[in-house]
Amino acid sequence: MAEIDGTTLDRLYTVIAARRGADPASSYTAKLLAEGPAGIAKKLGEEAVETAIEAVRGDDSRLVAESADLLYHLLVLWAARGIAPAEVWRALDARSGRSGIEEKNSRGKS
Amino acid sequence: MAEIDGTTLDRLYTVIAARRGADPASSYTAKLLAEGPAGIAKKLGEEAVETAIEAVRGDDSRLVAESADLLYHLLVLWAARGIAPAEVWRALDARSGRSGIEEKNSRGKS
Amino acid sequence: MAEIDGTTLDRLYTVIAARRGADPASSYTAKLLAEGPAGIAKKLGEEAVETAIEAVRGDDSRLVAESADLLYHLLVLWAARGIAPAEVWRALDARSGRSGIEEKNSRGKS
Amino acid sequence: MAEIDGTTLDRLYTVIAARRGADPASSYTAKLLAEGPAGIAKKLGEEAVETAIEAVRGDDSRLVAESADLLYHLLVLWAARGIAPAEVWRALDARSGRSGIEEKNSRGKS
Repeated sequence: MAEIDGTTLDRLYTVIAARRGADPASSYTAKLLAEGPAGIAKKLGEEAVETAIEAVRGDDSRLVAESADLLYHLLVLWAARGIAPAEVWRALDARSGRSGIEEKNSRGKS
Repeated sequence: MAEIDGTTLDRLYTVIAARRGADPASSYTAKLLAEGPAGIAKKLGEEAVETAIEAVRGDDSRLVAESADLLYHLLVLWAARGIAPAEVWRALDARSGRSGIEEKNSRGKS
Repeated sequence: MAEIDGTTLDRLYTVIAARRGADPASSYTAKLLAEGPAGIAKKLGEEAVETAIEAVRGDDSRLVAESADLLYHLLVLWAARGIAPAEVWRALDARSGRSGIEEKNSRGKS
Repeated sequence: MAEIDGTTLDRLYTVIAARRGADPASSYTAKLLAEGPAGIAKKLGEEAVETAIEAVRGDDSRLVAESADLLYHLLVLWAARGIAPAEVWRALDARSGRSGIEEKNSRGKS
C-alpha cells in the first residue's frame, strides 16, 4: 500500500527532510538545504527552464531526467520551508475532481 | 496499493491524459493540451517562477498553491509528450536510494 | 537619432517610469506597475522562459519579439524599484572591459 | 563617450560576438557560445529567476547585479543566433511610441 511504504515522492521527501541540519559538506541535499529557500528557489527555476527547453526538443529520456531534477528540487524547497507533501496533494485533490478542474478552468480562461 | 487506488499525481495524470483530443473549449486542460509542448512549457516556466517567488516570501499556503499549479502543469506537459508518471518515479527511485543520492551529490558538487 | 535623444532602452524607461502612479486601467504599463515588484517579476520570469524556448526553436523574428518583451518587463521592474538604467549600464561597463570580462570568466569557470 | 562609441549593450555585444569560434577554454563567453543556444538559454532562464527573486527582496545593488547578468546572457544568446541588437531595438521602438504602447496594452489586457 502507498500508505505503508509510501510513494516515490513521499519517500524521497522523507530522505531529504532528514538532511536538514546536516553538514553541508555531507551531501548535495544538505548543501542545498543550508542555502535556504532563496538558493533552492534559484535552482528550481533553473531546472524548470531546463524542463521547458527539453519539452520543445524531442528526447523523452532527457525530459524525464529534467522532470526528475525539477521534482527533486521542489521537494527540497518544501523541506526547507517545512511544508509536508500531503499539503500539496490535498491542494491538488481539491482541484482534481471534475468540479475542481472546471473551477480552475473558469479561472484560467479569463 | 498505488496501482489500485493510485496516488494524487497518478490519478490527476489519468484525468489530464483523458482530455487529449478533447475540444479545447471544453476545459482549461484540453486547451493547454491543444497548445502543445511549447505552450505548456511556457506556462510551466511561469508557474516555476511564481513558486520561486513564493519560496522567498513567507506565506505557506501560497507556496502550497503555487507548487500545486506547477505540478499540474508538469503533468499536462508529460501527457502532451506521452510520458507516464511511472517513468519519472523510476528516475527518482534510481537516485533516492543512498547510493543514488550520493552519486548525484558527487555530480552536483563538481 | 538614437545617439542624440538617448537609446531605445533609456527612452522606453522614461516612458514607463512616467506611468508610475497612473490609473492601472489607463495602460498595461500602469497596471503592471500597480502590481508591484512581485507581480512584475512573475511576468519577467514568464517572458524569460518564452525567450529560452524561442532560443532553441528556429524563428529569428519570434526570438527578437520575445527578447523585446523580456526587456520591456525588465525596464518595468527597474521602474517599480526606482533603479535607473544607468546603474545597470555601469555594472555592465565594469565587466565589459577586457579585464572585467576576464574577471567574470575566472568567477564563472569555477 | 557612450553617445559616440555606441551604447553599453551595443559595445558589449560587439565584444561578445567577437568571441564566436574562439577556444571555449579562452573565456567564459567563448565557453557559453560553444554550448549553443540551448545551453545559453538555460543560463538565461536561471539568471531571470535570480532577477525575479531579487526583485522581491530589498537590495538594490543585488537587483542591479542580477539584471546585468541577465542582460549579458541575453546578448550572448543573440550572438549565438546571429541576431543584431538593432533588430531588438527596432522591435521595442515600434512599441514605445504612444500608439505602440497602447496597442500592446490592448493585447495585454485581454
